[in-house]
Amino acid sequence: MTTIVAVQVHDVRFPTAATGDGSDAINRGDYSATYVELRTDGPHTGTGFTFTNGRGNELTCAAVRALAVHVTGRTMAELAADPVGFSRSLTADPQLRWLGPEKGVLHMATGALINAVWDLRAKLAGLPLWRLLAEMPTEELVACVDFRHIGDALTPADAAAVLDKGLIGMPERRARLERDGLPSYTTSVGWLGYPDAKVTALTRAAYAAGWRAMKMKVGGDIEDDVRRAHLIRAEIGPDALLMMDANQVWDVDEAIACMRRLAGAAPYWIEEPTHPDDVLGHARIQAAVAPIRVATGEVAANRVVFKQLLQAGAIGVMQVDACRVAGVPEVLAELLMAAKFGVPVCPHAGGVGLCELVQHLAAFDMLRVGASTDGRLVEYVDHLHQHFTDPVRTRGGRYLLPRSPGYSSTLRHASVAEFAFPDGPAWR
Amino acid sequence: MTTIVAVQVHDVRFPTAATGDGSDAINRGDYSATYVELRTDGPHTGTGFTFTNGRGNELTCAAVRALAVHVTGRTMAELAADPVGFSRSLTADPQLRWLGPEKGVLHMATGALINAVWDLRAKLAGLPLWRLLAEMPTEELVACVDFRHIGDALTPADAAAVLDKGLIGMPERRARLERDGLPSYTTSVGWLGYPDAKVTALTRAAYAAGWRAMKMKVGGDIEDDVRRAHLIRAEIGPDALLMMDANQVWDVDEAIACMRRLAGAAPYWIEEPTHPDDVLGHARIQAAVAPIRVATGEVAANRVVFKQLLQAGAIGVMQVDACRVAGVPEVLAELLMAAKFGVPVCPHAGGVGLCELVQHLAAFDMLRVGASTDGRLVEYVDHLHQHFTDPVRTRGGRYLLPRSPGYSSTLRHASVAEFAFPDGPAWR
Repeated sequence: MTTIVAVQVHDVRFPTAATGDGSDAINRGDYSATYVELRTDGPHTGTGFTFTNGRGNELTCAAVRALAVHVTGRTMAELAADPVGFSRSLTADPQLRWLGPEKGVLHMATGALINAVWDLRAKLAGLPLWRLLAEMPTEELVACVDFRHIGDALTPADAAAVLDKGLIGMPERRARLERDGLPSYTTSVGWLGYPDAKVTALTRAAYAAGWRAMKMKVGGDIEDDVRRAHLIRAEIGPDALLMMDANQVWDVDEAIACMRRLAGAAPYWIEEPTHPDDVLGHARIQAAVAPIRVATGEVAANRVVFKQLLQAGAIGVMQVDACRVAGVPEVLAELLMAAKFGVPVCPHAGGVGLCELVQHLAAFDMLRVGASTDGRLVEYVDHLHQHFTDPVRTRGGRYLLPRSPGYSSTLRHASVAEFAFPDGPAWR
Repeated sequence: MTTIVAVQVHDVRFPTAATGDGSDAINRGDYSATYVELRTDGPHTGTGFTFTNGRGNELTCAAVRALAVHVTGRTMAELAADPVGFSRSLTADPQLRWLGPEKGVLHMATGALINAVWDLRAKLAGLPLWRLLAEMPTEELVACVDFRHIGDALTPADAAAVLDKGLIGMPERRARLERDGLPSYTTSVGWLGYPDAKVTALTRAAYAAGWRAMKMKVGGDIEDDVRRAHLIRAEIGPDALLMMDANQVWDVDEAIACMRRLAGAAPYWIEEPTHPDDVLGHARIQAAVAPIRVATGEVAANRVVFKQLLQAGAIGVMQVDACRVAGVPEVLAELLMAAKFGVPVCPHAGGVGLCELVQHLAAFDMLRVGASTDGRLVEYVDHLHQHFTDPVRTRGGRYLLPRSPGYSSTLRHASVAEFAFPDGPAWR
């Protein structure tokens, strides 16, 4: 019986702003992590994090400290026996909830803590998280989901039906994923900070490395966006997928007008065309730009927002984020709703360690929930993997299935020390 | 020319949890304020705050510190000349925005800072805020609104039309408000923590004091809710208004079912029937429970959520909050949208100092935006007013118009010292 005896949180920041990596229409920062370690009375440490953009990482760290009271002293047996009770102790704390509810700083901190618990759970089981989840009995998975406020879109019976159906053919799907890896796409080619020549060179290199799906940032000057889109399309030919990401800058009507201009480059999806809270706006855009798909989710606050995006037919691709919502159980709710509504999930990655996390979620989805690789592509960004003890491995534009026990969420001690803010050597 | 030379923030907490005041279906805490003072090179200090529920107030305080860089050193002339630029320096900070965007801890801190700027602006003008706003030229008010992401519901021309129309008959409306005060309702009668006898006694006392509109909390055991509703209805007779507040606990279908049970007590509105992010859910509930009105907004994250509630016909009453969104300019956007869509605004109050703030917003709305008192009731809760230098004054169930320059947002020095957390005498 393992007990969590202490919660430690580290403010870790990588100075990425200077290079233009990760710059888009609205974000420009130092990729950072609110990094949580759950110390136990056993040999294992659970690790989890939420990703932030530099300044403000102290806020999510402080939120972890505020929430830690609900984690410290708990046994893993207790938490596994009542996963919804545990989630609600964090998401419905009668004083802290006012600061959300279930959104922003507080919810991101909740995600870091709950993810650390799941990392620990997978380590104790001796399995990579994707496998722990894929092989879990249906009733145990259903018991992890908090159906409150999503009952009008997904019932426990709906969830069980999806998960039972997902058992059919799972061994064959797993053999294929073990052999071929997970389909993915790269976002490393077209950040707004990059000049045209760099975009062309990166696109060419990515294509040569096997990538057949690439994403560019849009939402700057529309003429620049159109020119860059055609540059990339010329490099990758008509068959590869080109995705576009506006990072929320457009108004609804502006998004529709801009996508008319960009349609000539045959985009597969337009990501974050407008404000992430605007369900009705996304629905209008989706209706206007079809067959281009609307994609969103990296800053969708919680399962209630995803529920509505699905109910309104507002998205053709659902982009879950591993650590903006309340960790593995809330992502599970989102995957289940996507499966019920027939929308493919293409998780958001990049940042610090998001690739490491979402490969587990995507593999689980492809094996057991969506139960298919059709239309499913995991984002890949080639940043900062070297700081993790179990970094992602790719081959020919595909993620290889992770093998180590846990959630691949553990940072190297040396990296935590080097990039600790404000006192680590990198920041002094 | 006044310059803001320093931003000071105070963590002020009142130990209210012990009494059951402010307890409802999901919140139970110590009413607190993240209290901001803007020191200037002149005689005035601008004050603003956001309200929180106890633990976690340190997070909004830390967020104010993170945002203060955008306020310190600015002149009031600059901020008045480019109000949208100023708002966006806070709401679209390229590193901090990731922690929202425009929601939760970060947005609440933004509200505290921007409200303090408007308090200072009103003090410099020598006017109470409601009057500064009501008498401001239309183009100057329109220039305060950030239309990004709401352009599909409200254009600058729409806003100008509303505000110009609001000038018609304003002197007569003002004379009436000066004479009669603002229509309001009281929430002090039916908190979930109160026993039946206390509910009856408080209802009787409120009726005797002139209140003809009262709100009770629901969302506990439905039989208890029904019994208490009929107790209050019996006390107040058939003509007074009874409002109900579920504080988000119900699922969509559960809300519809519970309101069928409660309809016998003839409620005027049902407030927060389900999760505040669920625009589509509120729309379904509104369609099902009409003519009972759905009311929400106290934790609506921002103007994009309000926009959708209006577009979807999801609410019959809009409840703006003075300090969850980005201060006076974002509330102005919300009031303008409500006026365009023909939905009355009944601001959320209570907590710490919310009554002090919203009386200004409601008076401005009644004078210039909604330009009517019809269907408009300001929430009143009789808590903690004694800690303010310019507390609300009521007479016969109505707020009297505030007279002192500013936003009535200034706490007494002695109260800030006494209730400073964790070192003030009240907490030691």
